[in-house]
Amino acid sequence: MSLSYRVQTKCKDTMARTGVIETPHGKITTPVYMPVGTQATVKAMTPAQVEETGAEIVLANTYHLYMRPGHDLVEEAGGLHKFMNWNRPILTDSGGFQVFSLGALRKITERGAEFASHLDGSKHMLTPEKAMEIQQALGADIIMAFDECTEYPAEYDRVVGAMERTHRWAQRCIDAKTRKDQALFGIVQGGMFEDLRRESAKTIAAMDFPGNAIGGLSVGEPKDMMNDMLDVVSPLLPEEKPRYLMGVGSFDCIIDGVARGVDMFDCVLQTRVARNGMALTKRGRLIVRNATYARDFSPIDEHCGCYTCQNFSRAYIRHLVKANEILACTLLSIHNVQATIDFVREIRDNIEAGTFASYKNEFFENYQERK
Amino acid sequence: MSLSYRVQTKCKDTMARTGVIETPHGKITTPVYMPVGTQATVKAMTPAQVEETGAEIVLANTYHLYMRPGHDLVEEAGGLHKFMNWNRPILTDSGGFQVFSLGALRKITERGAEFASHLDGSKHMLTPEKAMEIQQALGADIIMAFDECTEYPAEYDRVVGAMERTHRWAQRCIDAKTRKDQALFGIVQGGMFEDLRRESAKTIAAMDFPGNAIGGLSVGEPKDMMNDMLDVVSPLLPEEKPRYLMGVGSFDCIIDGVARGVDMFDCVLQTRVARNGMALTKRGRLIVRNATYARDFSPIDEHCGCYTCQNFSRAYIRHLVKANEILACTLLSIHNVQATIDFVREIRDNIEAGTFASYKNEFFENYQERK
Repeated sequence: MSLSYRVQTKCKDTMARTGVIETPHGKITTPVYMPVGTQATVKAMTPAQVEETGAEIVLANTYHLYMRPGHDLVEEAGGLHKFMNWNRPILTDSGGFQVFSLGALRKITERGAEFASHLDGSKHMLTPEKAMEIQQALGADIIMAFDECTEYPAEYDRVVGAMERTHRWAQRCIDAKTRKDQALFGIVQGGMFEDLRRESAKTIAAMDFPGNAIGGLSVGEPKDMMNDMLDVVSPLLPEEKPRYLMGVGSFDCIIDGVARGVDMFDCVLQTRVARNGMALTKRGRLIVRNATYARDFSPIDEHCGCYTCQNFSRAYIRHLVKANEILACTLLSIHNVQATIDFVREIRDNIEAGTFASYKNEFFENYQERK
Repeated sequence: MSLSYRVQTKCKDTMARTGVIETPHGKITTPVYMPVGTQATVKAMTPAQVEETGAEIVLANTYHLYMRPGHDLVEEAGGLHKFMNWNRPILTDSGGFQVFSLGALRKITERGAEFASHLDGSKHMLTPEKAMEIQQALGADIIMAFDECTEYPAEYDRVVGAMERTHRWAQRCIDAKTRKDQALFGIVQGGMFEDLRRESAKTIAAMDFPGNAIGGLSVGEPKDMMNDMLDVVSPLLPEEKPRYLMGVGSFDCIIDGVARGVDMFDCVLQTRVARNGMALTKRGRLIVRNATYARDFSPIDEHCGCYTCQNFSRAYIRHLVKANEILACTLLSIHNVQATIDFVREIRDNIEAGTFASYKNEFFENYQERK
């Protein structure tokens, strides 16, 4: 078995739970936030810095690595773990979402998705079989089925078509996969339609993947709608397997997701807003670039134990942001990743202490949502 | 006394020597390469990473910090050491060279240099007194006299004028300096004229600074000319004080400088070429971006002990360079800084072992000069 999962503690008031996933590269304690290393690097951070934040697993991107440097090259390097010098678990997505994001540049047929490279416009085809071939060459511990994500808003018929194709493609992924040391996760689609989400959850659950992902959310819909869809999908996914909410990772969405039984999260938010001079905290975002912090010699978050907060002031980081210094991206990325991981650890601690529901209430009392 | 220097070992064949400088923030073993942190950050590196390379002292830039965030803000932060979280020695230059580099944007009078900010075009005036005020606010261990550097080539009369002004400004710096815990170094000018260099060296030496710098070299002249000037200047500078060759730091120039009695070097080359995908080695430059390294899974330098060479391949770094990933800059900066520091350490070891002359010959047999 390439992956095992066991629940440790269940919350009495919500679907929240803690657990442990075992992989060939070590264990992951859940709920977990997974930093994203799109191009085989968590942007602006060394693997040593990523490890120092407490990260237990990182993501990498099949589409991007297929385009550059090529999965064959990564395989020749000894696989992704060795290539990027990350010896803990890795998850690769299937490339489905990235191809979907190419919009007019892609055409979807039953066979797969034809698209033009964002780098040089060259024509390529991703199919379920090709997505498996690439992900097997990359060698991540957890790999994802090739799916078709739908935009928001989308017509019912279009969502039905994409969902049914996603189910057929999921079976083709199962059939194409040969490596035994990787765990393939299925992906639930169904847009923002409860009946389709229900159908997709049941179909994917029945295919007996070692883990199940919920895709097609956080694509522009209101936040309540995402939670509504989770309320429908989550109870239909097997309790004895990890649930992964793809592409979601703001503090409020994480805690809402955990309350709905989600175990795994990933998001580029942490490193992306860092490059725009923003810090994430349990109270909301801090725009370090703002003039108000010019002479603020306190850390981003005085309760944070990250390298950045232990050693640098808002004034210094603001100076770096204004001066376009790379170190600004690095220090803010370190903080944002570690702050998220520490937040998820607090969530775990509260689930185990039986105080999750009140912790969640308290969190929302203090959290300033993004306007 | 804010600074002391003592010679440890002298080379029998050349002017090379090893020594130790003591400062309020610790000791520096010489010869030393000082990484440059222009805007209070060694570009693309955390202070922890800079420390890990073995760096004993870093530079920061008076002109840049005066412009942004302002020396008053840095002083309010508790000084530069605290602001940038670097607790070892710091040297600040006087801003003279940066103002000189502004070309048409600056006007030099006896009082000082009037210039337009490179950021917003606002008018400013740097004088010897102002340069002391700023550097005292920044609080570096070693501060530099405000000087006038001449371009290459330059007319004899123009160089005479700049040199004589540099001498008068040096005295004004001595008169303006009030802090006792900082050491002020004088700067020799004189362009590429031996008689002027001789005059300047004698004049600056007579002013009894605790250390003496050689400015106005590496401004576009042929390398032999720089060495000729060092041959003239170095013997005229007191042996019992450190000699600092400003803005010079390629491997070949360092070893040539050491042979001529230079103890301190600084250069942005290490971090600048890193941002262009280039690595420095004792054999010359490695253009990691080149296609020839696409599938080269060996480190930049198999003999190098830096974090980059211990953990990453040329192929991976090339991928990062091609993908415009910040980590490329970080990994190459770490390597370039540490490779230079390790090289200078080898030079020290060879001076102490009495083998410097043969080490230098061997170095040049293997070193591929930049074309």
